[in-house]
Amino acid sequence: MTARSAKDTSVHLDAEAGAGGEFRRQTNRFTTPFGDGPGELPVEAGRYRLIVGLLCPWAHRQLIVREVLGLQDVISVGVVDPIRGDDGWQFTLDEGGVDPVLGIRTLAEAYRRSDPEFTGRPTVPAVIDLTTGGVVTNDYHHLSTQFETVWRPLHAPGAPDLYPEELRGEIDEISALVFDRVNNGVYKAGFARTQEAYEQAYEELFATLDGLEERLATRRFLLGDHVTDADVRLYPTLARFDAAYHGAFHCNRQRLTEFPHLWGYARDLYALPGFGSTTDFDHIKRHYYSIPIVRSEYGIVPAGPDESAWLVPADRAALSSTPDEPYRRPAA
Amino acid sequence: MTARSAKDTSVHLDAEAGAGGEFRRQTNRFTTPFGDGPGELPVEAGRYRLIVGLLCPWAHRQLIVREVLGLQDVISVGVVDPIRGDDGWQFTLDEGGVDPVLGIRTLAEAYRRSDPEFTGRPTVPAVIDLTTGGVVTNDYHHLSTQFETVWRPLHAPGAPDLYPEELRGEIDEISALVFDRVNNGVYKAGFARTQEAYEQAYEELFATLDGLEERLATRRFLLGDHVTDADVRLYPTLARFDAAYHGAFHCNRQRLTEFPHLWGYARDLYALPGFGSTTDFDHIKRHYYSIPIVRSEYGIVPAGPDESAWLVPADRAALSSTPDEPYRRPAA
Repeated sequence: MTARSAKDTSVHLDAEAGAGGEFRRQTNRFTTPFGDGPGELPVEAGRYRLIVGLLCPWAHRQLIVREVLGLQDVISVGVVDPIRGDDGWQFTLDEGGVDPVLGIRTLAEAYRRSDPEFTGRPTVPAVIDLTTGGVVTNDYHHLSTQFETVWRPLHAPGAPDLYPEELRGEIDEISALVFDRVNNGVYKAGFARTQEAYEQAYEELFATLDGLEERLATRRFLLGDHVTDADVRLYPTLARFDAAYHGAFHCNRQRLTEFPHLWGYARDLYALPGFGSTTDFDHIKRHYYSIPIVRSEYGIVPAGPDESAWLVPADRAALSSTPDEPYRRPAA
Repeated sequence: MTARSAKDTSVHLDAEAGAGGEFRRQTNRFTTPFGDGPGELPVEAGRYRLIVGLLCPWAHRQLIVREVLGLQDVISVGVVDPIRGDDGWQFTLDEGGVDPVLGIRTLAEAYRRSDPEFTGRPTVPAVIDLTTGGVVTNDYHHLSTQFETVWRPLHAPGAPDLYPEELRGEIDEISALVFDRVNNGVYKAGFARTQEAYEQAYEELFATLDGLEERLATRRFLLGDHVTDADVRLYPTLARFDAAYHGAFHCNRQRLTEFPHLWGYARDLYALPGFGSTTDFDHIKRHYYSIPIVRSEYGIVPAGPDESAWLVPADRAALSSTPDEPYRRPAA
């Protein structure tokens, strides 16, 4: 199974490689927004099922928001296996390998119910309309802010505002940078097919993390005192960093734990309900280390660690009774 | 080329896998020792050529000893490409892809000159007798101590004693442990085909490094005040640890730089002539990251990093003007 799923993933990755060997993520197939406008998806308790992989950073955002906003009784959740099968994401964690609500074995079935011609890579998160059994949105770019805004009538009492109107410009600006350089940046490093594409992604990733580290030295959260949607988007990549991206995607200039402020910030969020409770390191590790390592086929060499550290004097001569003689003289 | 060489390596790795999915390194083909006894290889200046890969820890030992003992004018050196070709190690770094002294394109040719039936994995280091062009020893287990002892008449004036008689028992004892758990231990982790075999190698490796860390807290070198053959054997694995084994072989409980004494010890050696000068991080990284990742085919999951660190309180609430309110209240 793993050999075949590896092949399956490779085919899709071939379709998502640019001319310069860079990773170009496919666009989302279903992007109708929630709302009460014409043609929009009606906001309705019990009507939708959110399909996620616990491995997936784009799905992770939605799980966090669902718990923080108290939408658990309003939108149900199905979880796919962290390892892709022959037909993509599958419900092998459920009894009999079938999602108990949808009655399907693979997420691809729900994609094809909405679009019989769909031949792309079925992705999580996917929202399924239980009245049809088909996917109505897989637009992870906008799903969390829709849960935060148009779904507000269904939030639990006392639920916070993660997307305050007067901060939306700043939240969207930082989130666009974080998406390009960090969330998707690690994938651009991991799926690069040329050394140049890899190194560009690596440089952009760590330069951005350096900037965020500085920002978080004086701010508890990205926008200041309160958690916002910007934190919900950054956190899933930090949670996967040392467990997966550092090794499997060669993002190895340093670990998250070596950025004091980012690391403290990540733990601060982890301790809040909805963050740590939706973080599954086992699924994360099993998924990322199951991906066929594109880089080894293409001869990519990791850019880190920084070897200039080897030149720092060790100052260990004082441990010796012959400090100037590191070698023993031979017996006559 | 890389695809074919990957296949070539896999065939050999298949032959070196045990029933429990563990890596069983092949034995050395040519083990006649140097010496003046009957059937032994005569010690003679200018007669031999040492073929090494700068990537290889077993070859690295010999390069260190050759420089520390001043044998550079006595034994010449040829260097293979860090990436294996269709027929194993090749001389593509040399003009025309041919070793200028031996006139061969691949190391396998020298193995077959000595044994036309040889079908194993040709390995470095290999010592070639220039009178025949064939390999006379690839016995890296004993080569360094032979250079240190029976080759002494050809050492440079003032060359140190790396293998003092009264310490040989202790040196051999620690080197046997270091070989099994550290030098070969990283390969046992990296080439394991079952999660169990990987985890056993990982545990033994780090338990041994913990012991060495403690030992080096009070000793400048493994045997005390002076560099010995035991240090020559440990050093090559430390030099490759963060650059390759941590990532490519999933030896990721921690980096070398996170062991204060081992890291200081490694830098202390690196600064000595013969150690840093024979350490080529570029060859090391290019080699190890070119190896087909056996683990991804077999579903191995890395054992580290230690995620319990996520539970350490972040103590960042004081950065906020609303320390008890991590969330913003919604506007009315």
